[in-house]
Amino acid sequence: SGGSGGTMASESEAQRALQYEQTLMYGRYTQDLGTFAKDEAARLRLQEGDTPRPRHPSELLEYSQGRCAPCRVCALQCQRFLISKVGEDWVFLILLGLVMALVSWAMDFAIATCLQAQKWMYGGLDTNVLLQYMAWVTYPTVLITFSAGFTQILAPQAVGSGIPEMKTILRGVVLKEYLTLKTFVAKVIGLTCALGSGMPLGKEGPFVHIASMCAALLSRFLSLFGGFYENEARNIEMLAAACAVGVGCCFAAPIGGVLFSIEVTSTFFAVRNYWRGFFAATFSAFIFRVLAVWNKDEETITALFKTRFRLDFPFDLQELPAFAVIGIASGFGGALFVYLNRKIVQFMRRQKTINRFLMKKRLLFPALVTLIISTLTFPPGFGQFMAGQLTQKDTLVTLFDNQTWAKQGISNEFEYLGILEAWHHPRSNVFITLVVFILMKFWMSALATTIPVPCGAFMPVFVIGAAFGRLVGESMAAWFPDGIHTDSNIYRIVPGGYAVVGAAALSGAVTHTVSTAVIVFELTGQISHILPVMIAVILANAVAQSLQPSLYDSIIRIKKLPYLPELGWGHHEKYNVRVEDIMVRDIRYVTLNCKYRDLQQVLHSTKMKNLPLVESAESMILLGSIERTQVGALLSNQLSPQRRLLTLRQKVLSEDGHRLSDSSIRFQISTETSSGTPARPALRKPLKPALKRVPSSPADSPPAGGTDHTGIALKSLFCANAATEPTEAQGTAYHKAKRVRISIVEEMILGDKMTPAEILEWEEQQLDQLVDFSSAKIDPAPFQLVEHTSLHKTHTIFSLLGLDHAFVTSIGRLVGMVSLKELRKAIEGSLTGKGVKVRPPLASFRDSTASTTEADTTALRQLWNRHQHHHMPREAGPGGDDDDDAPK
Amino acid sequence: SGGSGGTMASESEAQRALQYEQTLMYGRYTQDLGTFAKDEAARLRLQEGDTPRPRHPSELLEYSQGRCAPCRVCALQCQRFLISKVGEDWVFLILLGLVMALVSWAMDFAIATCLQAQKWMYGGLDTNVLLQYMAWVTYPTVLITFSAGFTQILAPQAVGSGIPEMKTILRGVVLKEYLTLKTFVAKVIGLTCALGSGMPLGKEGPFVHIASMCAALLSRFLSLFGGFYENEARNIEMLAAACAVGVGCCFAAPIGGVLFSIEVTSTFFAVRNYWRGFFAATFSAFIFRVLAVWNKDEETITALFKTRFRLDFPFDLQELPAFAVIGIASGFGGALFVYLNRKIVQFMRRQKTINRFLMKKRLLFPALVTLIISTLTFPPGFGQFMAGQLTQKDTLVTLFDNQTWAKQGISNEFEYLGILEAWHHPRSNVFITLVVFILMKFWMSALATTIPVPCGAFMPVFVIGAAFGRLVGESMAAWFPDGIHTDSNIYRIVPGGYAVVGAAALSGAVTHTVSTAVIVFELTGQISHILPVMIAVILANAVAQSLQPSLYDSIIRIKKLPYLPELGWGHHEKYNVRVEDIMVRDIRYVTLNCKYRDLQQVLHSTKMKNLPLVESAESMILLGSIERTQVGALLSNQLSPQRRLLTLRQKVLSEDGHRLSDSSIRFQISTETSSGTPARPALRKPLKPALKRVPSSPADSPPAGGTDHTGIALKSLFCANAATEPTEAQGTAYHKAKRVRISIVEEMILGDKMTPAEILEWEEQQLDQLVDFSSAKIDPAPFQLVEHTSLHKTHTIFSLLGLDHAFVTSIGRLVGMVSLKELRKAIEGSLTGKGVKVRPPLASFRDSTASTTEADTTALRQLWNRHQHHHMPREAGPGGDDDDDAPK
Repeated sequence: SGGSGGTMASESEAQRALQYEQTLMYGRYTQDLGTFAKDEAARLRLQEGDTPRPRHPSELLEYSQGRCAPCRVCALQCQRFLISKVGEDWVFLILLGLVMALVSWAMDFAIATCLQAQKWMYGGLDTNVLLQYMAWVTYPTVLITFSAGFTQILAPQAVGSGIPEMKTILRGVVLKEYLTLKTFVAKVIGLTCALGSGMPLGKEGPFVHIASMCAALLSRFLSLFGGFYENEARNIEMLAAACAVGVGCCFAAPIGGVLFSIEVTSTFFAVRNYWRGFFAATFSAFIFRVLAVWNKDEETITALFKTRFRLDFPFDLQELPAFAVIGIASGFGGALFVYLNRKIVQFMRRQKTINRFLMKKRLLFPALVTLIISTLTFPPGFGQFMAGQLTQKDTLVTLFDNQTWAKQGISNEFEYLGILEAWHHPRSNVFITLVVFILMKFWMSALATTIPVPCGAFMPVFVIGAAFGRLVGESMAAWFPDGIHTDSNIYRIVPGGYAVVGAAALSGAVTHTVSTAVIVFELTGQISHILPVMIAVILANAVAQSLQPSLYDSIIRIKKLPYLPELGWGHHEKYNVRVEDIMVRDIRYVTLNCKYRDLQQVLHSTKMKNLPLVESAESMILLGSIERTQVGALLSNQLSPQRRLLTLRQKVLSEDGHRLSDSSIRFQISTETSSGTPARPALRKPLKPALKRVPSSPADSPPAGGTDHTGIALKSLFCANAATEPTEAQGTAYHKAKRVRISIVEEMILGDKMTPAEILEWEEQQLDQLVDFSSAKIDPAPFQLVEHTSLHKTHTIFSLLGLDHAFVTSIGRLVGMVSLKELRKAIEGSLTGKGVKVRPPLASFRDSTASTTEADTTALRQLWNRHQHHHMPREAGPGGDDDDDAPK
Repeated sequence: SGGSGGTMASESEAQRALQYEQTLMYGRYTQDLGTFAKDEAARLRLQEGDTPRPRHPSELLEYSQGRCAPCRVCALQCQRFLISKVGEDWVFLILLGLVMALVSWAMDFAIATCLQAQKWMYGGLDTNVLLQYMAWVTYPTVLITFSAGFTQILAPQAVGSGIPEMKTILRGVVLKEYLTLKTFVAKVIGLTCALGSGMPLGKEGPFVHIASMCAALLSRFLSLFGGFYENEARNIEMLAAACAVGVGCCFAAPIGGVLFSIEVTSTFFAVRNYWRGFFAATFSAFIFRVLAVWNKDEETITALFKTRFRLDFPFDLQELPAFAVIGIASGFGGALFVYLNRKIVQFMRRQKTINRFLMKKRLLFPALVTLIISTLTFPPGFGQFMAGQLTQKDTLVTLFDNQTWAKQGISNEFEYLGILEAWHHPRSNVFITLVVFILMKFWMSALATTIPVPCGAFMPVFVIGAAFGRLVGESMAAWFPDGIHTDSNIYRIVPGGYAVVGAAALSGAVTHTVSTAVIVFELTGQISHILPVMIAVILANAVAQSLQPSLYDSIIRIKKLPYLPELGWGHHEKYNVRVEDIMVRDIRYVTLNCKYRDLQQVLHSTKMKNLPLVESAESMILLGSIERTQVGALLSNQLSPQRRLLTLRQKVLSEDGHRLSDSSIRFQISTETSSGTPARPALRKPLKPALKRVPSSPADSPPAGGTDHTGIALKSLFCANAATEPTEAQGTAYHKAKRVRISIVEEMILGDKMTPAEILEWEEQQLDQLVDFSSAKIDPAPFQLVEHTSLHKTHTIFSLLGLDHAFVTSIGRLVGMVSLKELRKAIEGSLTGKGVKVRPPLASFRDSTASTTEADTTALRQLWNRHQHHHMPREAGPGGDDDDDAPK
């Protein structure tokens, strides 16, 4: 009972810790988890110290006497058992799969109803074309406008695909408000409306986001039942599984979902998560399809877009060139799509006048785009040439159709049945309809996906790819009416197979994934075209990857999310560039025996978020890293009014506070001086609030935590520190001065009797003291690299561990630093977008590296000598620089 | 021209470097690549200094005059272009795919011929049962014996599956002679004979190994053309792709191949390799199937074991419980298979008498096993009850058959056509045949895979799984003759679908992979059973993973390869165990200002392969790590006879060498003393030569490189060092003493005029000098962890970076070390095989961790104080120990 009591105690603590940790769940980098856990434990212990923990009822119960006691003990044990089970991963994954399947199914149902309503309206008004047009156009415009407005008001984070953001989050970066209930609601409702409008938008990307939010919310909900030990690593693992579930239940494609989510969100993937993803995605897809059976939509569980191609002779070997052509063309098409999408966004941003107008009327842009697109697809109008009345789903079903539409070039040979009729136009033929469809849908999709509603681009691209494949297939069928095979049997060409290949190839090219191949197999329920699909997808990827980044990477760059570009394929120079070529050598550092004044100087002179802590300027031995905010806290603590008051009290109170008016004037002057420090504000570019679109009015941005404690010396500190607080940077210098003045006045009232001159003097004294690091959090093992680490290896380590910076050391001595920025520059310097390879500036083939070896040896010997003579000048530092100057 | 000349120069250098590096290709851990490259460059430069590089012909050519000069320049430029292309990854991957497809096809052809020959012999002798039996039994026995003998003689590394070894190699561990041409030849020929014998063996595992060897050989071959910059990281990436190719071209399953190889060989997977794997595997599978078309085996490219199940209603929802049962039963079956396989190996090893006998007659065991198995499958004998005459391929084809074998319980209702007849026995029914088949094949496969020939276990297990699935399917069909569906349409149950599910589930359970699901889809060319297959595979995995390690992990443990166990599923305690609980605190270290005597002591007292180098024993600041061999080299260099002779020459030659006999006696005594150091040899267990089965007779093991330079003090050094040289450990103390004496005698003859006493004295002097580290290779950035890193995170980092040890530091100070061993112990301590969870010894839930925080702070303050007072005692070390003693 003692042991179980201990477990209970720790459980309840874990639970309590969780409630706190949840608010920070995505608020920390993964690095300093150990430190975090330690602090957390310390905090808990302090809490416990204050309030003695009440004994758990069950503990008391076992000793209590009574009739119901045995029953209650039993019930409690059951409860305990259940609670311990709730924390198991598989329970979580099943729940996640179940919830997501329900969400997916319900959304599909709602979307289908919406589309049905539009069709019904359009059909009912067939007496008057103008009324019909009004209905056709107004309905989607209203829905899209509502969706845009709703998400704008409730949670602007819900806009867009969500895959780029999930990729960033899984890298360990913090995105605020990205996985909350509010965003979940906004995304689900916004997406339903957006897709219900019939615009060329997709649900895959948003579903990844929705599943991730669902996982985050579910883990928060389950933690209410206790039994959970929350952990950031576990959360990341669960999020990775959730991404798989998102894709899996969207297409009922568990395997493709897992693979797609891996390719799209990860650079390095833990095989143990794979399991989780499969489990949850399979369960989710299963429930999703079972719901369809239960709803009598289907007789049994089958694929979403089932095809019925013949099995015995799916395609001829001689058709392979045509499939390869589809692949290559899709590669170019995919790159063009990404380019077009980016250009539209950039154009909208650059045109100041349009932009200003649109910013005022936020909903005008979505409405306008919807109006244009729906006008063009109006079936009695231009829509008749591009199968405008078909919904996305119907389009896919018709494109994957088993029949050949155009036999021997004559399109009216067979009867168009049911929805297939849409592709048939009396005055044109199938080829023209398909070409028009592809061209129109291409720009429409690229434009529609820039609308600020929750939407993805996968499905529209998939449909365009299918149409393109169908076009090639129909052409082949027209060219070889009896098939290519010259044997006794006649095997006709199956254009539906080409459509499948095209769909996989184009969506693969846009997203830079190979797993679209698996998705089409699962989506169509047939794997007979595996080789053509694989060949086309690989070729499409090869072409698209050499031309443009993937759509998601493109969005990451547009949104300026932190990212690390991929290393290209077979660029050997990557192995020749080394850390010493790209690292920043001139870095600021904090020494163990420095003064507060040095801290101040360091904060002034650098914007680094993590400062290295070295033993001394002479030895430069790296001891750890300290966060910028911690340094700030140390300084502000040293100069805090509390400490000043303490000093004051210890002194004899010989002065009185009648120079109040004086001080405020002098203070104002000094403020203006400090906020007008030459060139400093110009250096700080205001960060674009790409993610946080919250209105940044002064009323909304509360003053930063430490502001009201600041003294004179600290103001300037905050100026340098402002880069870490984007909202601060948006304020004006005047506003800042005013706020500080108010706080100073408050301080005066509180009883600070020192004159500003005295304060200055006192602060100067304080700054000359040695820093006491005992209260600061120090990361004792920051990641270190060696000068000779190759760029390739550095990239691997950065993406593996999700680092954003690493210190470069040479036998314990700090010699430089590499951050994501340098790495990005080095990689993109050698890999420009236009296909021209630029040699990295210092990537000379090292045939004289032996000098480095000598230099290294020298440095080591000096270190060794130091121990003999207890002195080593700092200038006798790393020999890396000499390397490049050495004669060859 | 200058630039191109430079490129050419560096190319030829890279090439030259490569030829050297190749011999070391798998001879190094990945960690110190930077250092290695540096040394390599230094070596090259030195070479160049010695022999001035001859000018490249092409450079001269451009200036030469003549008629053919332009043509030759052009030809050379073309050649240069081609050479630069040869180095590209895609060329390599295409070549690899092509070669592997050819190998796979040729082997399949040879195996089919072998099997055909057996059938022909068996068929031709149908007049005499005894002769028939002799032919049936002798043929496989001869083949297997030849295979075993051939691989034993040519390359014993070729024995077995190869997947466990590839997993180890991809972790960065060195396995000698594992990727050579000799092993390749042995494996290909051995495997062909083994499979041609008709034993229940598979080709998947060996194919992974063959593809990897192919990749290694190909990269060595291509490097002859230059244009390559060889790099270990690239080699590992190529090996990962090769594993995918191996599976891919074995089953013509590119996607499944990639996924299976990832699951089986990696813990963390780089998504950029994924691409490579897909590319090569697709190409390989394509060529493999095209060869079949070209050989008129097939009309077009289709799946290997094509099924023709109906598409419109593949299975009923109500059949799902049956599929789940298959999954769960397969999970138990898979675990049993792994257990049985391991027990057989262990039994053979433990039985000393059997073992000794078998070791003498190495080929007896394979022959015996083959004899037993082929006797039991003899078709006119017991084989008639288990479809003995069918080859593995035919068995699978029949099991995946579309028809129902047993309708309404009566088995003779339909006609058994062709090979299907084998399953039909006049005096029994299909169910009994299937049950006998499953039971017999189960132990036969488990036994056959222990034969020392190149063989895998995937295919046999796959077949058993298919048979089990078929059994369940036939039972279901017998139970529900008209299907379960109660609607208007009658959909009969398809037992072939159950066979597919069973095959995927059992092979998934044995290998602990989910991707067997994908493999069956690609193998059968139908994906309609996706949900049953996924459900069964996941359930089978869940059961099998909780009972036994995977077959490959089991072999890794049997072979005692270095490994890191996987973290279990949802074991939360992993997040609570920290590095400080598992680390070794009492580690030996080298200080920067130590004496040679200290080095000697360190080498005596520890077996660690990497020693930490700290600034001083007081500060304990970690500067880097130094390899044990480097320390040994430093010491042997200091005490080398060369140096002694130098000292001798510098001295006045006042003594003569007439005390020769004396010295040899004294020496012998001292040797015996040192080799008989109490308890030390007992500590060193002789390492089992699991991988190197070369005979370890004294004649074969050449003395270690430095032996003939050793002085008296160094002998004992070698005793401590012996752990790194397994062959040394097998020698006797007597043998060692003898060898050293011989070398001493040689030394004497060479002109060493010092008496042993003087030598001892001189060595004592030398040992008292301070160590000069300038000539030693030091890894300046060994991997560091913090005390509070969780076990979960440690595991992640170890498997990500392929570490085998990491130092634990606290603010720069070394406090401990964690190696694979400790990690393994910690994980397996909490995850025992029998399902009982043992609490890790120190994994108390930390509710009093605040004390650690204080301790940390104290330690930091002390460090800080040291800078004030320039002194800190070492005893005031880490506070981690106090943590556990602190009252709760």
